[in-house]
Amino acid sequence: MLKGYTLPRSPTGRSSLAPRPPWHYAGDCLAVEFEADADAVRALLPSALEFESPRCCAYFVEWQYSTDEGEEPLDPVNSQYKESIFLLSARFRGESVAFCPFIWVDQDVSLMRGLIQGWPKQIGSTWITRAYPLAGRAAPQHAPGGRFGASLAVKDRRLVDARVTLFEPWTSLPRPSFDKAVNVRLFPNLARGLHDKPALFELVRLKSRDVRVGAIMKGEATLFFHDHPRVELSMLRPRTVGSGYRFSFALTVDDLETLLDLQEH
Amino acid sequence: MLKGYTLPRSPTGRSSLAPRPPWHYAGDCLAVEFEADADAVRALLPSALEFESPRCCAYFVEWQYSTDEGEEPLDPVNSQYKESIFLLSARFRGESVAFCPFIWVDQDVSLMRGLIQGWPKQIGSTWITRAYPLAGRAAPQHAPGGRFGASLAVKDRRLVDARVTLFEPWTSLPRPSFDKAVNVRLFPNLARGLHDKPALFELVRLKSRDVRVGAIMKGEATLFFHDHPRVELSMLRPRTVGSGYRFSFALTVDDLETLLDLQEH
Amino acid sequence: MLKGYTLPRSPTGRSSLAPRPPWHYAGDCLAVEFEADADAVRALLPSALEFESPRCCAYFVEWQYSTDEGEEPLDPVNSQYKESIFLLSARFRGESVAFCPFIWVDQDVSLMRGLIQGWPKQIGSTWITRAYPLAGRAAPQHAPGGRFGASLAVKDRRLVDARVTLFEPWTSLPRPSFDKAVNVRLFPNLARGLHDKPALFELVRLKSRDVRVGAIMKGEATLFFHDHPRVELSMLRPRTVGSGYRFSFALTVDDLETLLDLQEH
Amino acid sequence: MLKGYTLPRSPTGRSSLAPRPPWHYAGDCLAVEFEADADAVRALLPSALEFESPRCCAYFVEWQYSTDEGEEPLDPVNSQYKESIFLLSARFRGESVAFCPFIWVDQDVSLMRGLIQGWPKQIGSTWITRAYPLAGRAAPQHAPGGRFGASLAVKDRRLVDARVTLFEPWTSLPRPSFDKAVNVRLFPNLARGLHDKPALFELVRLKSRDVRVGAIMKGEATLFFHDHPRVELSMLRPRTVGSGYRFSFALTVDDLETLLDLQEH
Repeated sequence: MLKGYTLPRSPTGRSSLAPRPPWHYAGDCLAVEFEADADAVRALLPSALEFESPRCCAYFVEWQYSTDEGEEPLDPVNSQYKESIFLLSARFRGESVAFCPFIWVDQDVSLMRGLIQGWPKQIGSTWITRAYPLAGRAAPQHAPGGRFGASLAVKDRRLVDARVTLFEPWTSLPRPSFDKAVNVRLFPNLARGLHDKPALFELVRLKSRDVRVGAIMKGEATLFFHDHPRVELSMLRPRTVGSGYRFSFALTVDDLETLLDLQEH
Repeated sequence: MLKGYTLPRSPTGRSSLAPRPPWHYAGDCLAVEFEADADAVRALLPSALEFESPRCCAYFVEWQYSTDEGEEPLDPVNSQYKESIFLLSARFRGESVAFCPFIWVDQDVSLMRGLIQGWPKQIGSTWITRAYPLAGRAAPQHAPGGRFGASLAVKDRRLVDARVTLFEPWTSLPRPSFDKAVNVRLFPNLARGLHDKPALFELVRLKSRDVRVGAIMKGEATLFFHDHPRVELSMLRPRTVGSGYRFSFALTVDDLETLLDLQEH
Repeated sequence: MLKGYTLPRSPTGRSSLAPRPPWHYAGDCLAVEFEADADAVRALLPSALEFESPRCCAYFVEWQYSTDEGEEPLDPVNSQYKESIFLLSARFRGESVAFCPFIWVDQDVSLMRGLIQGWPKQIGSTWITRAYPLAGRAAPQHAPGGRFGASLAVKDRRLVDARVTLFEPWTSLPRPSFDKAVNVRLFPNLARGLHDKPALFELVRLKSRDVRVGAIMKGEATLFFHDHPRVELSMLRPRTVGSGYRFSFALTVDDLETLLDLQEH
Repeated sequence: MLKGYTLPRSPTGRSSLAPRPPWHYAGDCLAVEFEADADAVRALLPSALEFESPRCCAYFVEWQYSTDEGEEPLDPVNSQYKESIFLLSARFRGESVAFCPFIWVDQDVSLMRGLIQGWPKQIGSTWITRAYPLAGRAAPQHAPGGRFGASLAVKDRRLVDARVTLFEPWTSLPRPSFDKAVNVRLFPNLARGLHDKPALFELVRLKSRDVRVGAIMKGEATLFFHDHPRVELSMLRPRTVGSGYRFSFALTVDDLETLLDLQEH
């Protein structure tokens, strides 16, 4: 009997690109709140979600990941990746939620775990300034005055540049927040005549657990989106840029709630 | 209304990671036939397929890809990729087919198109010797005496080394052949309690069209599979290595036939 | 005794990043002639060279390389690389020469061989449309009507986009040509007080041998240079774009002629 | 007038691959002491150095770098890199020194700065487990019980695997230490007949300044060297593996002392 949470399947299940959940994560995050054009936000929301506001947030995260066995971080080519996440504000059945129109990672295992959760992941190159225990010209601190940058490039083109200067400790996370994420799981059909009828098409709510957040620092930010011939992120080009944030967080993923079957819509 | 054959979806559909089919391909291929341990082949076949023989084939392909618009090859970071494909012999309803237990590409668009077809694609690094119009020490020819190599590495570990010395023109393709491929489309569930019940799980037959094959050269080959802590390709370590081949081919993909719903099995 | 043409040195010399010459090359090349601002060309020429004309040429080459032993192409991760070369027209002692202000490769062995020849190599990502034996939407031909593209990105930013549509066979190479290259070999000092006094600083002429050129196709071209915060290539932004070319070539490098010691200037 | 500490040179000097010193660094380091075969250590030392002991040390470092302007960390693709350093014990004029036979980085600017200092840098892929502010399965701590791994791959082959489990705070750095490094600066000639007579060949002592070291943790370690067809690191395969260490450090480089002109030897 073949086993495997995803392809490829094998007698042991060990070859599966994404191992069985739970998936445990730790990340260092740089985030920038911004307002986009309201029509652009509306245009990128699935019809099952309502427009709430033009408030958006860009997150740049340097992750480390582990299964229950916990061996992935010890062969870190299997564990580490960087990610750029863009979230829109929205409403679903009267509740504020976050919707992700675009997200990029730099690794296949993360891409596969993401698709399963409805994150529209693609491969992209994210860079994020790191803090180091020893301050100095090469090492900003997670403290007032610390200056951090992040960038995203997709297929050899720079897409995003962000900078954050930290001012003060803060007690709340940027908004919209990934812990409110409502995603679309989509898996297409290839049979002729069915290219417009996905095999799977559903609205889902993430159910992360054991979410922990470290000390949050808040400050001022800049954020630029560059044009790209295929990727339409620049639809969301910031009209105004809000605060920047830096914090660490950890969470576990092993559950999901299906909200709607979108094939009926 | 959002459009997009895959995620991410946008008003234009242009942001979709994989664009709508048809997908047109051209490739230069180095292939090595080999026999693996029969029990290993049996162990890697889905239960819907019957064992036929221990004959396998490794293919290393340097691809260029286009949609109908044909612009991808002109911005080749969007079009080019390299792939390592491993095929097993099998039978389905009395007919010889090929089953792919493992396949690696170096690009996300190809990975997504592959998952939709049931290819169990992961990201890996493939290198293949190229022929050049001008012969010389640095440039083998697609002709008797031409020597070519290929390698595959996954997550910073060498997995496969292949070498082929061409002897003579040939008139048939290596076997098992990718034009007989029967794949498993699998998309998991993440809701707790459903981790073993995929949302989509079906046996499919590829229906490539407009397949054209260039001049085939055949010769002798070596093929080594290295161990890897996660990837179980070395289960198929060659018992005997058969002939090597080199040829170009082109094909179009826009259809698929579902053979069986595997969720009922 | 330690051996090695470059660092690192070892008892066998086998660990040397760049092996001893001769170095044999085969390449497929896409080239675009253009005129830059004459003052920019003047400003980028070493004082030992005289301005000749604003004519420049951009070359994008997909290479395969071998030593005399000829094993590198069989483990092609050691042999293959892609390169973007920009050449200016100049004069030296009354003779037309070519000077390279900027060049990017995607591999360390090539970078080291280049520094030794005075090519100012850096790491960059070059992509070039490939011709395939079988024509089709995904495969332009080295023939009238064939459309090819090339791009260069440096540190996650697109720097250059080029396109060429082939019209007709041609009998001469684009100008300025790399076979007229005059380079500057420069190796700095780090001792305090000597940062402006290089340990090695000389004008050299390349002496490639066994240069062979395949069938040349000529056509029309477009060429764009994008701005970059550090790299000053956009100084040479095309005022007018000339013809595009495609051809294969092969050569051997194992000699160099020192023209001037620039430390005395 | 062209300016530039290295190639390429431009009117502003801004295009220079490596900017003028000083260069400021901050790094997180995982280190493993080991003993190699004494004959192998002897065989890899330049003749100007004497054998001291078979004690060696492997360092894996995740760096961030800045010039005086301090902008590099804000566009971190220009600032961050990872490095694997191998050091041998040696003596020079009666003093204990460290000699580096092999070192790999993943970035061209670092490679160039390294060559100038006599570090025999090549491009390789290093991965190092990261500590995160929030403990958890995915995030070891810089504290007793913390488990960290590192790996090095070169040209698609795994070369080194290291693991360290931290036990206790410690007050001294592993030995041999990079702050005692004596390097060989070597720049070859390419003119025929001079391939064995480098243009520059000298023994140098690094003069790092403002070296600061953070809290050191010590523990137990494993270390494996894999064979590679070209790279001879496995000559130094550990006979015994000593302690493992983890610490952060920062330093500035802008000076160097030439000890010997090796061309006369």
